[in-house]
Amino acid sequence: MGIELVVVGSIGLDDVETPFGSAKASLGGSAIYFSMAASYFARVGMVGVVGDDFPETAPAMLLRRGVDLEGLERRAGNTFRWGGRYGFDLNERETLFTELNVFSDFRPELPSAYRGAPFLFLGNIDPALQLHVLTQVERPSLIAMDTMNFWIHGQKGDLRKVLRKVDALLLNDSEARELTNRTNIVSAARAIAELGPRIVVIKRGEYGAMLFFEGEFFYAPAFPLEDVRDPTGAGDSFAGGFMGYLAQCGELTWDALCRATVAGSTLASFSVEAFSVERLRSLDTMAIQRRVLAFQKLTHFTSMDGSLRVAPGVVHP
Amino acid sequence: MGIELVVVGSIGLDDVETPFGSAKASLGGSAIYFSMAASYFARVGMVGVVGDDFPETAPAMLLRRGVDLEGLERRAGNTFRWGGRYGFDLNERETLFTELNVFSDFRPELPSAYRGAPFLFLGNIDPALQLHVLTQVERPSLIAMDTMNFWIHGQKGDLRKVLRKVDALLLNDSEARELTNRTNIVSAARAIAELGPRIVVIKRGEYGAMLFFEGEFFYAPAFPLEDVRDPTGAGDSFAGGFMGYLAQCGELTWDALCRATVAGSTLASFSVEAFSVERLRSLDTMAIQRRVLAFQKLTHFTSMDGSLRVAPGVVHP
Repeated sequence: MGIELVVVGSIGLDDVETPFGSAKASLGGSAIYFSMAASYFARVGMVGVVGDDFPETAPAMLLRRGVDLEGLERRAGNTFRWGGRYGFDLNERETLFTELNVFSDFRPELPSAYRGAPFLFLGNIDPALQLHVLTQVERPSLIAMDTMNFWIHGQKGDLRKVLRKVDALLLNDSEARELTNRTNIVSAARAIAELGPRIVVIKRGEYGAMLFFEGEFFYAPAFPLEDVRDPTGAGDSFAGGFMGYLAQCGELTWDALCRATVAGSTLASFSVEAFSVERLRSLDTMAIQRRVLAFQKLTHFTSMDGSLRVAPGVVHP
Repeated sequence: MGIELVVVGSIGLDDVETPFGSAKASLGGSAIYFSMAASYFARVGMVGVVGDDFPETAPAMLLRRGVDLEGLERRAGNTFRWGGRYGFDLNERETLFTELNVFSDFRPELPSAYRGAPFLFLGNIDPALQLHVLTQVERPSLIAMDTMNFWIHGQKGDLRKVLRKVDALLLNDSEARELTNRTNIVSAARAIAELGPRIVVIKRGEYGAMLFFEGEFFYAPAFPLEDVRDPTGAGDSFAGGFMGYLAQCGELTWDALCRATVAGSTLASFSVEAFSVERLRSLDTMAIQRRVLAFQKLTHFTSMDGSLRVAPGVVHP
């Protein structure tokens, strides 16, 4: 089976502390979370760079999930490292250190087998590199991207250029506000669509995700979980579920985008249940389908049409 | 028609500033927002106290909405006053002043016509007064209450007593965390149910509201609005829509509670579109039904049963 979905992003070894535990040098980075999540729906090709300290167990795990690693570059030096700490408010994190290492010279090159893939996700990397990737692909049906505050402030010019060339932007609500200088999230979504991407997904952490497409909104709340152990990678797992589902279903209708948003929320909800990609490596059909059904139940209410009587008041004003 | 729903709460004159405007001595307080919202679904009796500075236009407006005012007490002195300011982040507000005035001696007495009402809402007042109200009612089908951080810290004993006597608690997420000392909101909801109320509704401001009942969760996102002008009273309008709908439909099933949560979100979404109760005074059947339908669309996705194929990976782990 050919590559259906290509992801370009960071690969790292993370030190993470939360009130519920910690992990040292555990597998992380946007391309990793994305690939693991998307692997449940589509054949993924991963583009990224690692150093010679990268554990051999990691590629083996990705291969078991069917992820293609021809795009994985190995260089002399250390893998990207990141350390972060979460308090009891898991929406807020503190970065303890960042060591770019081999990631600082990352210049993504797509293997020829990836260039015709119908779905492409540009992880949160320098917009100049995102543009460089776009010069290498044929005509994907859907190009989506992520970004972050760092590029919004530092690379506004390049960022705007990429935005004009992509179909979808996935980003956090604080990033949406900074990108558009609008505090209202509905208004920010509309403003982003005017910058290029006709599909806008605003991720709101523990509150869920909002899809904006052709003037309409869809909202998927985050799945209510009693045990959230590590929120790292939730956004990338969301993106993996979202894009993986679209690659599988092959349609880009309103309905398909809503279902993709639920698929993204589903994979994100699994991701945060354990450190690193521990939970994402061991899912099965049953677990995923059960949670999708639970999502359906979470927001479903029987129609009030006809049954809702509105009391008119004594005298109309 | 007899009184179906009684609310006991504060009535005030508010000075409010938001980035989108301001209002001076405008009608506010939990009982006011609640009554106006609930009036669209049920016959409401309002219990509260006002001073001799209370504008005559206010009772007239409530009467036009069919709200019964036999429980409205008038005293010599000034009405409760509150002043607050919101920044661009409308989730956070600063209290500029609070003058209790006649509210400081408020001791709610229910007119005899209110004592047999099947639905009762205890607004956010001193838990000792909430208990005092409970001694006056016959056997309501549903008693719901609100509370706030001030009582959680200052009146924990009385608050726990009321909690054991009510069916439903509606509160903000920060209050739910403080009441239970749990940061996880799912876990907090479960812990609250163990304190007494078998129905727990956690209000999350611009992120929506979560219903917990018999071990199950329902989530209604806040309606995505481009123009939010004044969030004051959103929670009380939610409570009014929620209780008003239940009083109208008369059932206390899971389905009815989900629909009530949507009715609450609907009324809250109208409330924040204008200062004070300006928007709540002029709704009609069509406007309410249209927004309920929009809510339905906001979270609806076509079922993925059967269509979702999960890729098993190359080798099962």
